[in-house]
Amino acid sequence: MPDDLSPPIPLKVTTGPITGSQKCYGAPDGFPHLRVPFREIALDPTAREEPVRVYDTSGPFTDPTVVIDLAQGLPPLREAWIAERSLATATPREVRPEDNGFVSDAALVPPCPAIRRVRTGPCRIPVTQLEFARAGIVTEEMRYVAHRENLGRDGGGAGAAERRADGEDFGASIPDFITPEFVRSEVAAGRAIIPANINHPELEPVVIGRNFLVKVNANIGNSAVTSSVADEVEKLVWATRWGADTVMDLSTGRNIHNIRGWILRNASVPIGTVPIYQALEKVGGEPEKLTWDIFRDTLIEQAEQGVDYFTIHAGVRLHHVPLTARRVTGIVSRGGSIMARWCLAHHRESFLYEHFGEICDIMRRYDVSFSLGDGLRPGSIADANDAAQFAELETLGELTKIAWARGCQVMIEGPGHVPMHKIKVNVEKQLRECGEAPFYTLGPLTTDIAPGYDHITSAIGAAMIGWFGTAMLCYVTPKEHLGLPDRDDVKTGVITYRIAAHAADLAKGHPAARLRDDAISRARFEFRWQDQFNLALDPDTARSFHDATLPKEAHKTAHFCSMCGPKFCSMRISHDLRADAERIAGMEQKSEEFRQRGHALYVPDPLSDG
Amino acid sequence: MPDDLSPPIPLKVTTGPITGSQKCYGAPDGFPHLRVPFREIALDPTAREEPVRVYDTSGPFTDPTVVIDLAQGLPPLREAWIAERSLATATPREVRPEDNGFVSDAALVPPCPAIRRVRTGPCRIPVTQLEFARAGIVTEEMRYVAHRENLGRDGGGAGAAERRADGEDFGASIPDFITPEFVRSEVAAGRAIIPANINHPELEPVVIGRNFLVKVNANIGNSAVTSSVADEVEKLVWATRWGADTVMDLSTGRNIHNIRGWILRNASVPIGTVPIYQALEKVGGEPEKLTWDIFRDTLIEQAEQGVDYFTIHAGVRLHHVPLTARRVTGIVSRGGSIMARWCLAHHRESFLYEHFGEICDIMRRYDVSFSLGDGLRPGSIADANDAAQFAELETLGELTKIAWARGCQVMIEGPGHVPMHKIKVNVEKQLRECGEAPFYTLGPLTTDIAPGYDHITSAIGAAMIGWFGTAMLCYVTPKEHLGLPDRDDVKTGVITYRIAAHAADLAKGHPAARLRDDAISRARFEFRWQDQFNLALDPDTARSFHDATLPKEAHKTAHFCSMCGPKFCSMRISHDLRADAERIAGMEQKSEEFRQRGHALYVPDPLSDG
Repeated sequence: MPDDLSPPIPLKVTTGPITGSQKCYGAPDGFPHLRVPFREIALDPTAREEPVRVYDTSGPFTDPTVVIDLAQGLPPLREAWIAERSLATATPREVRPEDNGFVSDAALVPPCPAIRRVRTGPCRIPVTQLEFARAGIVTEEMRYVAHRENLGRDGGGAGAAERRADGEDFGASIPDFITPEFVRSEVAAGRAIIPANINHPELEPVVIGRNFLVKVNANIGNSAVTSSVADEVEKLVWATRWGADTVMDLSTGRNIHNIRGWILRNASVPIGTVPIYQALEKVGGEPEKLTWDIFRDTLIEQAEQGVDYFTIHAGVRLHHVPLTARRVTGIVSRGGSIMARWCLAHHRESFLYEHFGEICDIMRRYDVSFSLGDGLRPGSIADANDAAQFAELETLGELTKIAWARGCQVMIEGPGHVPMHKIKVNVEKQLRECGEAPFYTLGPLTTDIAPGYDHITSAIGAAMIGWFGTAMLCYVTPKEHLGLPDRDDVKTGVITYRIAAHAADLAKGHPAARLRDDAISRARFEFRWQDQFNLALDPDTARSFHDATLPKEAHKTAHFCSMCGPKFCSMRISHDLRADAERIAGMEQKSEEFRQRGHALYVPDPLSDG
Repeated sequence: MPDDLSPPIPLKVTTGPITGSQKCYGAPDGFPHLRVPFREIALDPTAREEPVRVYDTSGPFTDPTVVIDLAQGLPPLREAWIAERSLATATPREVRPEDNGFVSDAALVPPCPAIRRVRTGPCRIPVTQLEFARAGIVTEEMRYVAHRENLGRDGGGAGAAERRADGEDFGASIPDFITPEFVRSEVAAGRAIIPANINHPELEPVVIGRNFLVKVNANIGNSAVTSSVADEVEKLVWATRWGADTVMDLSTGRNIHNIRGWILRNASVPIGTVPIYQALEKVGGEPEKLTWDIFRDTLIEQAEQGVDYFTIHAGVRLHHVPLTARRVTGIVSRGGSIMARWCLAHHRESFLYEHFGEICDIMRRYDVSFSLGDGLRPGSIADANDAAQFAELETLGELTKIAWARGCQVMIEGPGHVPMHKIKVNVEKQLRECGEAPFYTLGPLTTDIAPGYDHITSAIGAAMIGWFGTAMLCYVTPKEHLGLPDRDDVKTGVITYRIAAHAADLAKGHPAARLRDDAISRARFEFRWQDQFNLALDPDTARSFHDATLPKEAHKTAHFCSMCGPKFCSMRISHDLRADAERIAGMEQKSEEFRQRGHALYVPDPLSDG
């Protein structure tokens, strides 16, 4: 590849700050080199409030001081941390024609020119975050995520303990303040993971676990139709701009090796894949032809590129397949159906299950985390919580322990389509069977009857399952079941899932979760329209919806809105009477204090007295 | 008004069948004159399935055999039922200039020319559905709603009892089959209402109660800006087309009396209003100037027109107001803030509270149901479940018993903004305080941070609160907090709330709720794309989303879709292996039977055998 690659493809992605906010960085005391990103939303001076800092997943793309050049990749911020870990430098596996789907030279997407050293972990020293944690070592990644999660809790956060006590966390253990040691202990116990391939130095680390903020994953991928590199990287940038904590690249078809390279070198979030998809491409799309060798080679190929977590459907065992025979919707997971097909065609146990130990050993060497796939998840309300789903979950529990024993980080994938009354038992069973490994669920969709609106049918289930203890929610877009999500669908899906995750954090009693709700509510009550827009998950949509009815600039400082107009504005009326009510409430408080001091039973009637 | 009114305004509204379905009618045995509307969705012949009947709120507008003429109004289907009830004919109250906001002649919207006799109920005979129910009389309305609710349960509905047992209903009593006597007993106990003003003969009756299907209300209204009659009627038609069970007309401003007339004469669903809004208009928008006489007169004005339920904020008492003083968002209900203002300005108890008995007597005469307003509902997560909210709820409980004693039907309005973990206690407290009167909630929104997406923040809360026992959900549109909903917003709001209501029905274990989910899931698994679209809550959006990626007609019979393409289609693979899996499952069953018959311990291994 020429070094001076003049881009054969447009390399533009969305950059610049999110409306109304600016990028800022913080660092834990004593570790100034850990630049943890946040966004800061400045409020109207009349508010007399500090700017509101919010968690930021958008990477360097929203930092105007960073020059974005996709061909160079993002700054490798973890490079220095990783360099100190005595890891070996590997001779990278050579790229083969089948890695890119045997695409002809003319149609070949060039590899990303950003070159990174490929590393691999030796046997007897800690490589994975789990191994470091067990060895009692706090890594930079742990320190980084501790600071990131502590947003709003710094300095004790007035009222944090109250807010904690106010929530219902179903047995989670959410501390008022997250120390690096707490992160270490959670990772050591397997209750949290930090997906962070040693070959993905561009990563801004993220922790996924029940005792941390609920995370959101967005899926991207080119499916069977080709899309360009810039399109694929833009999907990543766009999804993280709106709040995706991790992104799964579910691409199939041609050029996937090279496109994945571009994605990884430009990904500030953990990237997940389903390696069986690429393996299937390599055998021409016929599941029967899959072999352990091809799969194994694909794992190494992707691990060397820097993929942070792999979905591995090793829980679909031969004897589970008949359990799906009388389902309404059979097997709806791609990986699950591929493996079921392989098992039946060969009348053999799954090679993923049989070679699970080897898979662990490969993934450990790069610290690729497991996302143990739920290949038998229900695809309809009728099939929810059935024997096939739960049998697989039990197998995933067994595999979790094997992966842990071999030093690998593990999370567990979950359903799917589940009516509301069957959601909680999913979490309870997952926590029990899988030793509290983080749960990572798709939705679940709470009804089947609304194609076109499945971001909503599933947001209901996602918020609930997040509350009950799921650590990460995989988004669903409005196009689910119908077509490929476009740019708008990706944004809608991400924002919808940020709502679900935040609703879950509030209900669990995360000590700082309510700060943003309270800030936007104060802005609302004080008619600070610009603040209300800027504090919203999607400032642009909030502003444009307001402007659709009241477009004038003056209306953004108006003490009423279009819904009720000035005469009927409850908030305006409420303001007008607040002074009166305050006075009365003050008098009531005084008389209460008076009573409590035992002085007398005389209570002035504040209402006839004014 | 001239009889031959040539419409001064365009009188077109949306008519014609919803895509993929046709109107049909059913009647309970022995009562052929009760023509209960449904929609029927015919499936592809390859499905070999009966057409799927669904509940239909869309009124005569989707029946191509009915000629729609807004000036004539809808056929008065209840006229014959009401005519037999020995009610008195009233001399209608004369329309006054203030009823239409003192609008000048030129700007006056003409009254709807459809003339109906105005009736009023005498003292000593049953007038309201509650009074009939208590007298042991099953009305036509009760029979009608029983048949309507029984959809899918007719003939025992195979598996209905199983589905019931599968749900979690939190103490509701949902029968496998709804008899008219069951409806009567629920109405008599106050656990359900059938809002049905004797002056609204065009109504297709609906039952609202915890032991029936969860209902959805949509709000319409012209706010401070004027909109035309046709616009307002179209909003009604549009909202009910997509599934609104009731519609509240929250109009303020000019011409509201006459516009309400047009709405009522063309409404097949119960219409609710908030009479204090019009009363406030009559006193120039200054709450202090409100009087009992003006309010009383407004009640009669609207009751004579046929409004089916009134929101009455009689629970906002003088001593509650100080409880709101330190709230983050004060009082956010328009009615609540108006009454609070009145109370403080006069330092007097609310005239709604003081005259509550008289209000009951007026509403009873027309069988206008109470929707006891929650004027102190929380407007932010910070204010949820606070002392003000719960103090008002206790007062609503007290008022419920007064209204019942005077023969009125009652439902209770609820919040608002409530985080997930505080939702359930709202239902429990409401059921306890209000003697199980039906609960009717707005959302609740489960977070404050997503203006522009509050249909979603609230659908999460709505689905949950519906599951816990709320009888009717008031929709929230994407424009909530920001602006006036347009046509698309109304549709999005209604569909979103149909999702929430249906998810609740499924979780409660309504015996027939799952039939539609199962039908669409079978269609999905069998690649019957057209059936999948037609069975969807919104067939048009489902189809257009599919066509966005795969526009060709042939793709609608394709055994794959754009998400995965043919090679990666899990459902196709699942089909291919179904025959195998079926055979194996059959063998397992046989060997299990063999074992159970105690013949031997020998179990053939089906997987190595074939």
